Amino acid sequence: MAKVIASITTSVDGYIAAPGDGPGRGLGEGGERLHNWVFGGPWRYEDDARGEPSGEDAVWFAEVVSRIGAVVSGRSTYEAARHWGERNPWDVPVFIVTHRPEEEPDSGEFAFVSGVEAAVERAAEAAAGKDVQVMGGAEIIRQALAAGVVDELTIIVAPVILGGGKRLFEGFSRSLDLHQLGARQSRFATFIDYRVKQ
Amino acid sequence: MAKVIASITTSVDGYIAAPGDGPGRGLGEGGERLHNWVFGGPWRYEDDARGEPSGEDAVWFAEVVSRIGAVVSGRSTYEAARHWGERNPWDVPVFIVTHRPEEEPDSGEFAFVSGVEAAVERAAEAAAGKDVQVMGGAEIIRQALAAGVVDELTIIVAPVILGGGKRLFEGFSRSLDLHQLGARQSRFATFIDYRVKQ
Repeated sequence: MAKVIASITTSVDGYIAAPGDGPGRGLGEGGERLHNWVFGGPWRYEDDARGEPSGEDAVWFAEVVSRIGAVVSGRSTYEAARHWGERNPWDVPVFIVTHRPEEEPDSGEFAFVSGVEAAVERAAEAAAGKDVQVMGGAEIIRQALAAGVVDELTIIVAPVILGGGKRLFEGFSRSLDLHQLGARQSRFATFIDYRVKQ
Repeated sequence: MAKVIASITTSVDGYIAAPGDGPGRGLGEGGERLHNWVFGGPWRYEDDARGEPSGEDAVWFAEVVSRIGAVVSGRSTYEAARHWGERNPWDVPVFIVTHRPEEEPDSGEFAFVSGVEAAVERAAEAAAGKDVQVMGGAEIIRQALAAGVVDELTIIVAPVILGGGKRLFEGFSRSLDLHQLGARQSRFATFIDYRVKQ
């Protein structure tokens, strides 16, 4: 059986976006610092070009890419990313959790699914024995954790205190024991891997 | 100049105590899991005896003890610990931040000081060149961070999602950039060390 892995970047104070997030500014105002690890260093929304991950960050991406067979994303993440330019940027099927599955684009690039559990189920089928990556946003990860469908949780902690924004665990009231699988640090973030005890 | 180091344990969802904390139950109901790393494994408030830290956890304590010359604690932490049995459990002076410094015990075991900045200042003098440890609680650490008197921040992440309780960064609205100093993991927690950029 494929594993379902949720991973997301947060600030030290637990925010996945600074205030003022939205399309084209998915990490909020000044929230770019959360993703310095993604782009190999400091960057701004306004930049024409963005860098590539390097070192441990690149290793992490390569490992994730090698093990996943499908991706699950929330609709707001999809919108914030401006539909990734209407092209699936991964080499594997992507399932978008949405209340309006009828809005699925005709391109066939993205499958729209109602409900995180159904999306994870379809992703697991599509992954054909490989792992499923639940990439966020926060609400999708909370729903997946609450539904008990997450096997592994990776918290990527960026070295910044934001002082406000969207909390990863906002409104999450379940208590879950985790088993530590490991921790490592790149120049720009600390990666902590957990197995979720069900 | 001595460094001021703040360190505190949080859950993965950022709580330093589960709901229902108070004297004798400083980590709240079921919050003992936060401090498995302190006692060498699972423990309960009701236990007659508690274990000792081991492995990496013991190494961390030994390192902290070797570098600190004074401790700053909040009044509520002092109360939750039942005044550590009216005896300073450290080999160095302890300064308790309180709105009622006139309630300082006659024993001379603890110095009561009004305000976190004054407490850190007095602790730095008493430390005579060694470091000052700000041990919490959360409010004291927030006040110290907001006042710009923290040089290093260590977040000790216990492998548990509590789903409620007291948040370390509750109401903290400043944004601070941090510089990663390192990360390591014991059996029971992940230690992430930061330098606070002023």
